[in-house]
Amino acid sequence: MTQVRSIAFVGLGIMGLPMAINLVKAGFEVTGYTLEAERTQRLAAEGGKAAGSIAEAVGGADAVITMVPDSPDVEAVLLGEDGVFANAASGALVIDMSTIRPDVARTVSEEGAKRGFRVLDAPVSGGEAGAVEAKLSIMVGGDTADFATARPVFDVLGTTPVHVGPSGAGQTVKAANQLIVAGNIQLVAEALVFLEAHGVDTEAGLEVLNGGLAGSTVMTRKGEAMRHRRFEPGFRIALHDKDMKIVTTAAREAGVAIPLGALVAQFVGALKAQGHGGLDHSALLKIVEQLSAGER
Amino acid sequence: MTQVRSIAFVGLGIMGLPMAINLVKAGFEVTGYTLEAERTQRLAAEGGKAAGSIAEAVGGADAVITMVPDSPDVEAVLLGEDGVFANAASGALVIDMSTIRPDVARTVSEEGAKRGFRVLDAPVSGGEAGAVEAKLSIMVGGDTADFATARPVFDVLGTTPVHVGPSGAGQTVKAANQLIVAGNIQLVAEALVFLEAHGVDTEAGLEVLNGGLAGSTVMTRKGEAMRHRRFEPGFRIALHDKDMKIVTTAAREAGVAIPLGALVAQFVGALKAQGHGGLDHSALLKIVEQLSAGER
Amino acid sequence: MTQVRSIAFVGLGIMGLPMAINLVKAGFEVTGYTLEAERTQRLAAEGGKAAGSIAEAVGGADAVITMVPDSPDVEAVLLGEDGVFANAASGALVIDMSTIRPDVARTVSEEGAKRGFRVLDAPVSGGEAGAVEAKLSIMVGGDTADFATARPVFDVLGTTPVHVGPSGAGQTVKAANQLIVAGNIQLVAEALVFLEAHGVDTEAGLEVLNGGLAGSTVMTRKGEAMRHRRFEPGFRIALHDKDMKIVTTAAREAGVAIPLGALVAQFVGALKAQGHGGLDHSALLKIVEQLSAGER
Amino acid sequence: MTQVRSIAFVGLGIMGLPMAINLVKAGFEVTGYTLEAERTQRLAAEGGKAAGSIAEAVGGADAVITMVPDSPDVEAVLLGEDGVFANAASGALVIDMSTIRPDVARTVSEEGAKRGFRVLDAPVSGGEAGAVEAKLSIMVGGDTADFATARPVFDVLGTTPVHVGPSGAGQTVKAANQLIVAGNIQLVAEALVFLEAHGVDTEAGLEVLNGGLAGSTVMTRKGEAMRHRRFEPGFRIALHDKDMKIVTTAAREAGVAIPLGALVAQFVGALKAQGHGGLDHSALLKIVEQLSAGER
Repeated sequence: MTQVRSIAFVGLGIMGLPMAINLVKAGFEVTGYTLEAERTQRLAAEGGKAAGSIAEAVGGADAVITMVPDSPDVEAVLLGEDGVFANAASGALVIDMSTIRPDVARTVSEEGAKRGFRVLDAPVSGGEAGAVEAKLSIMVGGDTADFATARPVFDVLGTTPVHVGPSGAGQTVKAANQLIVAGNIQLVAEALVFLEAHGVDTEAGLEVLNGGLAGSTVMTRKGEAMRHRRFEPGFRIALHDKDMKIVTTAAREAGVAIPLGALVAQFVGALKAQGHGGLDHSALLKIVEQLSAGER
Repeated sequence: MTQVRSIAFVGLGIMGLPMAINLVKAGFEVTGYTLEAERTQRLAAEGGKAAGSIAEAVGGADAVITMVPDSPDVEAVLLGEDGVFANAASGALVIDMSTIRPDVARTVSEEGAKRGFRVLDAPVSGGEAGAVEAKLSIMVGGDTADFATARPVFDVLGTTPVHVGPSGAGQTVKAANQLIVAGNIQLVAEALVFLEAHGVDTEAGLEVLNGGLAGSTVMTRKGEAMRHRRFEPGFRIALHDKDMKIVTTAAREAGVAIPLGALVAQFVGALKAQGHGGLDHSALLKIVEQLSAGER
Repeated sequence: MTQVRSIAFVGLGIMGLPMAINLVKAGFEVTGYTLEAERTQRLAAEGGKAAGSIAEAVGGADAVITMVPDSPDVEAVLLGEDGVFANAASGALVIDMSTIRPDVARTVSEEGAKRGFRVLDAPVSGGEAGAVEAKLSIMVGGDTADFATARPVFDVLGTTPVHVGPSGAGQTVKAANQLIVAGNIQLVAEALVFLEAHGVDTEAGLEVLNGGLAGSTVMTRKGEAMRHRRFEPGFRIALHDKDMKIVTTAAREAGVAIPLGALVAQFVGALKAQGHGGLDHSALLKIVEQLSAGER
Repeated sequence: MTQVRSIAFVGLGIMGLPMAINLVKAGFEVTGYTLEAERTQRLAAEGGKAAGSIAEAVGGADAVITMVPDSPDVEAVLLGEDGVFANAASGALVIDMSTIRPDVARTVSEEGAKRGFRVLDAPVSGGEAGAVEAKLSIMVGGDTADFATARPVFDVLGTTPVHVGPSGAGQTVKAANQLIVAGNIQLVAEALVFLEAHGVDTEAGLEVLNGGLAGSTVMTRKGEAMRHRRFEPGFRIALHDKDMKIVTTAAREAGVAIPLGALVAQFVGALKAQGHGGLDHSALLKIVEQLSAGER
């Protein structure tokens, strides 16, 4: 394939819709489909086209982007009878940008290849703000040539598209991302509650911590909100819980121990079980508070 | 006190000597004392003065800086018969920049106050390189007025002196720093071994991870060395082990749970027990490797 | 159904064969089938019948017992085209004694009910010795009436058949069993290495520990072998690793935090990854040793 | 020394008083001292003698038993100016039955030896009930000959006095005991909440679990109370928290990793921080509930 001009975009949720709109603004011909017709209309209002089915959306598209919640959704959308592989033009580039299990990414890639498609897994990091502002980090697994073809698309959506390896590698890196992020949040939470309990000025404390080896993007972006117990998402605990399951399973399959990851996965799961699945993942601080002294 | 001109510097180790030299270069009159006479001579060669005892060093100094390994050393140097409080000029500013237990910092501060001294706890972060390049982060506990008096001294030694609270607060923030740093290293190690096991290009992987919410100073400064298993210190496991004991104890005293901190403390202790106390703390990656598949 | 006289026994492995032989000795008419014909012949030599297929085995049997390694095996044996549900006499009692996922147990039970079968999940605890000596603990999920019908069969195989709830409950209790057992082994291992490092007489130490509130069946049965580093199975790490996956997944689904369970699951997985999957689960002591001081 | 006839008993608390009374009943001449005069009178009412000071109590006693809360108390009682070593008859057998740090046990033993005393550390397990019913487990560190001399005393107090090694070994075994007990309680709690969440009959479930390899004295003695959320002590969280600090510190000193121990220590500390220090240690179940789904 030489160049991508027309794109079918399947899945216009919180992430997918602003991404599709950014592609429209960049001059791509974008046809969208999602379960909620209202959201498809919002894409149309921005200059895209609205399709009533996957088949209609992917018709003659050079590339198909999927952005759906979980592994079974990707399987349904790509492999289903009414799905992408059954209806897209042979040779189309298929880019799954959902966050799913690496092994499922490999499976659908192989399945697509059998039917003549070139499939990339390209999950993103950066949240709704990153999607709207086109500042997503994009971790891409698949063939080098396909990455090159998709590159102009990725450049519209984010600032850091990186080709990290063969099929599934993008999802693997995303899994590692979620492991580190959850762990960093928990560590900042433990440190913050510890400092508070000792009567330290935490605004000054976080400033100096962030200026040294303890510094992190988590502290920069979430530290102040955590100090003030503002836990509006952001990135929801319920989604992070799904992702922690992905990384613990993928680590087990690879024979790799992730003891800190496994422990923080328990706390993410605990928050969800407590009914806090809708809060930002920085609400891990609640777990530290529950386990510590103070009025409750 | 109006202004600090003369400084006694007790403890001219890996950190202390370059710090004292930087103060000499900045125009302070610095008299040094340390157990190894050879190191005192190195200070003298740079324009400082060499003292043969604490008493001689602190004689008429406006300020005394102590930089020694551990809590008992600080107690000995400050409280001992031949120590600082017994020999320094009344009213001198005493700045302990060692990393010690917060409760000991409070105790020596109170003890100093009884004898007419103004005591700050001002531990640093940034390692040998930070000491040499005068880029230390400095976390200061004590009175606001004393912090203001000491500020010109701190500005010579580092880039981020921050007053974080009353006596002991500097050590508390340093303890939190060590908790987060050990945890972040362990998380990066878990992610790295996980990515390797899945055949991901880890150079590209770390790049994209560091560009997103998973990014951290640990990843920036230690990631490449960890990829290549280069574990020269840097900051030694044996010292980090001491610091993890400080933070776990201080958290327990405050009634704060630090489950991730307590778990990574076990791994830091394990490395030390294995005889790796002299390696950089990024050698936590060895623990992850030991617990994972592969030739060994 | 009034009474079980004829039994088809599918899966004559380390556990299944001695169980089937015990049923023969107790007077049941037992027809066996397993993939290795040689093992079927061993049953025949003890007075059972050898079948060449599941269909042949289950022909007119009052009850079918399945004893196979993992969830997919149970699905294949029960649900497959050549499997039990497709070939057994309508109304037969189907007892799955394998250790599998509780949700799979529920699924096959429902599937069996649709086709007119009464299905119990009845995993066991006690290992090869328990199977040979007919001293298995049996945890049974399913209908009370079916449990009553199966009771005479269970009484031949073990000493403690207990009806613990509806379909799937047997597997849930077995999962809890594996959680506690792995945790207890790890705790005894931590205590033992700790005592050795302090120069305590561990034979006397374990004796007094086992006589008090710290006492456990793990200590009674495994303590001496652990002291002497004898790790012949017994129950293999590879199987316990499978079971830890079952319990961590089932706990997540139920919204229950099992932090100690999740951590010890990492260590069981680590042992397997290190190539020790064939050792007894008491080899968790190796992990404690690796993480501790001493010649290695 | 040939035989112990007269005993000074220092510390007549929940444990000490019934122990002292049992010694009176067994025919020993027992003189008691404790801070609360009322409790000394209760001993006198049972046939013992009441002393108004340690000096008066230990006067001509063949043996001195101390039973006080913590390490500093033992140091004060044994080493203080008005203490045991300053006032007891030279050559007396000194038996500390408190639960304290192994290193403190070794220190006071050495200190006693310098002054001509023979010192044993002999902490107990079994709680108030064990003290009253004379069914304590007793773990004894010190010289073999001294253990033999003390044996008749121990036989009155408990059923399992065991000599486990040199001075300090008794406390080390007690520390290991507390590690295992806390861990076992946490594991039973995780299993119990897990079973409840899956709708299992937990009475039947615990029965079958306790009959197999998962069985333990914790399950036997605490299982029913945990099912019904009855957390009256028994053994208080506040004391167990102290003991977890002892074992984590002693493990660190020995270079031994106790990851499960360190994690459960966090949860014991959390319960205490939450204000539940007065509940039985089986209240660890509350932590599991907090971290899990359900009405709250």
